[in-house]
Amino acid sequence: MAITMGDASGVGPEIILRRFAAGLLGDDAVVYGDAAILEAGADLLGLDVRPNAVEHPSRSRSEGLNIVDLERLDAADLTPGRLNAKAGAAARDYVEAATRDALAGRAAGVVTMPMNKQATRATDPHFTGHTEFIAALCDVRDFCPMLATRDVAVTHVSAHVPLAEAIRCVSRPRVRSVIELTHRTLSRFLPRPRIAVCGLNPHASENGLFGSEESKIIAPAIEAARRDGVDASGPYPADTVFYQAIHRDRFDAIVCMYHDQGHGPMKLASFESAVNVTIGLPIVRTSVDHGTAFDIAWQGEAFTDSLGHALDYAWKLVGAGVG
Amino acid sequence: MAITMGDASGVGPEIILRRFAAGLLGDDAVVYGDAAILEAGADLLGLDVRPNAVEHPSRSRSEGLNIVDLERLDAADLTPGRLNAKAGAAARDYVEAATRDALAGRAAGVVTMPMNKQATRATDPHFTGHTEFIAALCDVRDFCPMLATRDVAVTHVSAHVPLAEAIRCVSRPRVRSVIELTHRTLSRFLPRPRIAVCGLNPHASENGLFGSEESKIIAPAIEAARRDGVDASGPYPADTVFYQAIHRDRFDAIVCMYHDQGHGPMKLASFESAVNVTIGLPIVRTSVDHGTAFDIAWQGEAFTDSLGHALDYAWKLVGAGVG
Repeated sequence: MAITMGDASGVGPEIILRRFAAGLLGDDAVVYGDAAILEAGADLLGLDVRPNAVEHPSRSRSEGLNIVDLERLDAADLTPGRLNAKAGAAARDYVEAATRDALAGRAAGVVTMPMNKQATRATDPHFTGHTEFIAALCDVRDFCPMLATRDVAVTHVSAHVPLAEAIRCVSRPRVRSVIELTHRTLSRFLPRPRIAVCGLNPHASENGLFGSEESKIIAPAIEAARRDGVDASGPYPADTVFYQAIHRDRFDAIVCMYHDQGHGPMKLASFESAVNVTIGLPIVRTSVDHGTAFDIAWQGEAFTDSLGHALDYAWKLVGAGVG
Repeated sequence: MAITMGDASGVGPEIILRRFAAGLLGDDAVVYGDAAILEAGADLLGLDVRPNAVEHPSRSRSEGLNIVDLERLDAADLTPGRLNAKAGAAARDYVEAATRDALAGRAAGVVTMPMNKQATRATDPHFTGHTEFIAALCDVRDFCPMLATRDVAVTHVSAHVPLAEAIRCVSRPRVRSVIELTHRTLSRFLPRPRIAVCGLNPHASENGLFGSEESKIIAPAIEAARRDGVDASGPYPADTVFYQAIHRDRFDAIVCMYHDQGHGPMKLASFESAVNVTIGLPIVRTSVDHGTAFDIAWQGEAFTDSLGHALDYAWKLVGAGVG
């Protein structure tokens, strides 16, 4: 499994080092990053960790911290908590190398540590985001973000767009497609995933009292999915369906119409234990559920569990074979 | 304290009877409803409860279940789980009588049990909702719904409108007003309530990357509130602020830009323990956090705790004196 190191000024490489030192990284993980940063970082943290340079994951050795060393940065580029354009550019290169190796079958999948968008934009002004970058490398347009916990997987019709635009993204083909992507992904490890689809409006519009997207767009998309054998139902009110899924085990997945409809409840219920997954790609890609956290980077304070969850979920998807 | 009985076909009167029989209603509660329904209902449930008719709450007797008997329904109108236009009209009349008594100082406040909108509309097609009806009786336009738990109070710029319209409701004066109503309400029992204000867009637009409402509307409204001495801050991303308020105790209240932004996280975290409050009224009004639940009405199955929470919160607001 490829782990991209993330922005060197942030918590990404620190978390990798601390989990490795604690014996929590697993033998099958290979970092895509800079050995110079991991060495300087281990000294900074007082950890006895020596990186082993390998060509790609299938050439990894089990002793030591295996790394595909892209040699973009020097020890002097370890600038904790400081915006560093060189580190931002390097973080993008790690992701590109890991994605290409996964596409070529040289890595089982990619787990990404956080990038700093501002740092990467300093040298690449057109960089819109981690996920969009990977999707472009995979030549895929029909992808979708999923937030997953042990209890439930939550997918989104749109993500990082203004709410007004998110409403316009709610189209019959897009909703149908996200239901399908959700079904295909969960079918890898569940026999017949039960998929709840949210409405867009409060109370899922209460039979049209507050909006028509439910009857005109969402219900027909659900109906089309059901005709294709998908166990989809709804539209459900977004303020009760999470309880039904998580505490009553009525659903395995929830399709949300916009970012905060899913992220609001999920991040309250599962702060730092949710995994970000990009579905619809030809490769497995998961991500930790936190940012670069410049304010606490390299101080030995950052939670390291999220990387463990992201690795576990990536293996869960791989184990069952995502193609 | 006035408790309106709610729709007789639903769980409202059943819950009142069961809580009274269990000694959980409190001596200061007076039901606004129909004694004939409570008597027939007690028989149906096998409970030994006799209603005492009183003129208004300050004339209540402590033994027995005190009721302001509006005599709208007969025992034959107890039609569990069935839409009943007569019961729908009666439910509205209970609310009107209780609200008028609270306005006249004859009741400390009003706690409402659920109405069935469809049943009430059978005789009153212009009935838009419980809260709007009470606000009109109070001759108030600038009110706002609040969802409250022990941990946090969540208020909303808009409630039961389509999401596209909710976005248009986010104006500088309205956001400023909801911050002020939130501040005034919580100031009754907290010295200086800490109020977090959500953004409208994902990640509160990430400094304008996905939307401009944060910088153009919400931030100036917060600034205006702060100039008036209110401890308001934000705009915060809606997917992290609930965690900060509830699990890190950083805020006492959260102002949300639309219904599901608040209800989504809150109903997952506190299903059936949240209380609905209408703030901005000249009277105290709380409500249970569930509907008429026709599917389980009068079967002795409905949870009764929500009425307890709604009564407690109403007394909390009264005790500190809402004016």
